[in-house]
Amino acid sequence: MASKEKDHVVGIDIGGQTCKLGVVDARGDVLAQKVIKTSSDPSAEVVIAELAEAVRSLVAEAGMEGRIRGIGVGAPNGNYYTGTIAFAPNLSWASHGSVDFAKMLSAAVGGIPVSLTNDANAAAVGEMTYGVAKGMKHFIMITLGTGVGSGIVINGDVVYGSDGFAGELGHTCAVRYNGRPCGCGKTGCLEAYCSAIGVARTAREWLELTDEPSSLRSVPEITSKDVYEAAVHGDALARKVFEYTGKILGQKLADFVEFSAPEAIVLFGGLARAKEFLYEPTLKAMNENVLPLWRDKVKILFSQLKESDAAILGASALAWEL
Amino acid sequence: MASKEKDHVVGIDIGGQTCKLGVVDARGDVLAQKVIKTSSDPSAEVVIAELAEAVRSLVAEAGMEGRIRGIGVGAPNGNYYTGTIAFAPNLSWASHGSVDFAKMLSAAVGGIPVSLTNDANAAAVGEMTYGVAKGMKHFIMITLGTGVGSGIVINGDVVYGSDGFAGELGHTCAVRYNGRPCGCGKTGCLEAYCSAIGVARTAREWLELTDEPSSLRSVPEITSKDVYEAAVHGDALARKVFEYTGKILGQKLADFVEFSAPEAIVLFGGLARAKEFLYEPTLKAMNENVLPLWRDKVKILFSQLKESDAAILGASALAWEL
Repeated sequence: MASKEKDHVVGIDIGGQTCKLGVVDARGDVLAQKVIKTSSDPSAEVVIAELAEAVRSLVAEAGMEGRIRGIGVGAPNGNYYTGTIAFAPNLSWASHGSVDFAKMLSAAVGGIPVSLTNDANAAAVGEMTYGVAKGMKHFIMITLGTGVGSGIVINGDVVYGSDGFAGELGHTCAVRYNGRPCGCGKTGCLEAYCSAIGVARTAREWLELTDEPSSLRSVPEITSKDVYEAAVHGDALARKVFEYTGKILGQKLADFVEFSAPEAIVLFGGLARAKEFLYEPTLKAMNENVLPLWRDKVKILFSQLKESDAAILGASALAWEL
Repeated sequence: MASKEKDHVVGIDIGGQTCKLGVVDARGDVLAQKVIKTSSDPSAEVVIAELAEAVRSLVAEAGMEGRIRGIGVGAPNGNYYTGTIAFAPNLSWASHGSVDFAKMLSAAVGGIPVSLTNDANAAAVGEMTYGVAKGMKHFIMITLGTGVGSGIVINGDVVYGSDGFAGELGHTCAVRYNGRPCGCGKTGCLEAYCSAIGVARTAREWLELTDEPSSLRSVPEITSKDVYEAAVHGDALARKVFEYTGKILGQKLADFVEFSAPEAIVLFGGLARAKEFLYEPTLKAMNENVLPLWRDKVKILFSQLKESDAAILGASALAWEL
């Protein structure tokens, strides 16, 4: 029998709470997937052995033994150049030093090559390979989740910069210097306003500062999901929170357009589900703040990838380049 | 006799007042150069014929007939992809439409290939070919002149973006939205603060708003050069103007670092001559505003190219890629 073609890849999305794994074919169909609890073991060796075992059983389940071309991994603080995960605050096993992740995982799965980058860069590769950015050579992916991540594509390649860490647009300065404190230690970052946490905070601040009636006043611990649901039900304050958030986002997108002149900005992540409230103010603020030559020319798109598959697809897409 | 090797290039820098031309060898030596008054003829055909004549006579003067590999041109609103100059407010012959400059000039000089980009991108290629960025794959050139221009290099290539106009960092938002009006029609642009015009304006504003003694009070029409000279002579207000300018510049450089993670930022242009007053506050503000992973890692360098040659060298460097 002829040796089987290596025509499938594995995507792994490493998060603070869970790791998602999937076996993916060339069309972007996820043949098998599973979610495992992210190990709290402080030893990277133990964690990688667990992941390797999960990969093996998933590949067997999909009937794809011997047909895996490579493994793509999206991980916080993942570095494409070095294959390491270093000082990732939410990963107990990679929070206090640098873990030679790609090399170790590859060895643990019998030599299948492993490519690694951060989650937002993986999402950008995913959109370019399977999503709304298919065929685009120049776009910027912004992930609006708990934080704000970004992946920048220029000439069809993700921008990694001189050190592998380029594309931290969530930590560019929005609104003003000395603005809100951000989790990164700086103040005024885009992430402090345009993340799920930022939206909830804006709502809480406005409720405190005004007497405006709002259904949110009866919610004890407001989350961005509460704000979204209030907006859906017509709550004026909640809608204004999204207008404000979109305006700040659009202002910064204008800066990014002036940097790399992309065809489109692609928005993804939990907060991007509030498309109906975010799209108009974001687009308006972006167009008001770009040079005339880009006005009404750069598209704002929302990822169409199935939410449950997107992280796996993004990571897996990296592996096609191996 | 064997045909001569095409081992020289011509650089042309097109400005609002003058055009500079030079014949350059592979080491970056300018063998012959001349400055001609920029034609105010509204016909692009006439202007291009004049330029072609100037190229021919300069090449003859250098004794390099038949040895010109290509012509590189830096021009306001020059587009690398299309070879056009379009809607350039300071060029009477290219202010109201698009001029097919590269093609027309090439035809007018007997088919020598012509490559075109804007002046700041040309400066970036010049630094990479002959200057302080030699050997660098990732850096950002910022030209601090009458305006603020920029050329971004990633993986050894200038970033032109989807349309050829990427790298307008002078028009990203500094200080605050709704800040100073900028020549581009927007408000709060970096250029409104960190250009020669911006420095002069800051000085004039401060003189009006305070009673602080300053030698600048006796200067009728303050320019950035006046501010620089006052600073050299110890004027406290003038020095504070540069501190303020450097702080604003450094804050925005931090955003740019978070975009493309360059090895260095290279500063060039008339205002960059105030290095002794700009360097410290710029570096300090950049380091205070980047993520910890880049703190004290990204260099700020000043162009070392001979001022009189720099524009020609930058443009000429483009031609080596032809």
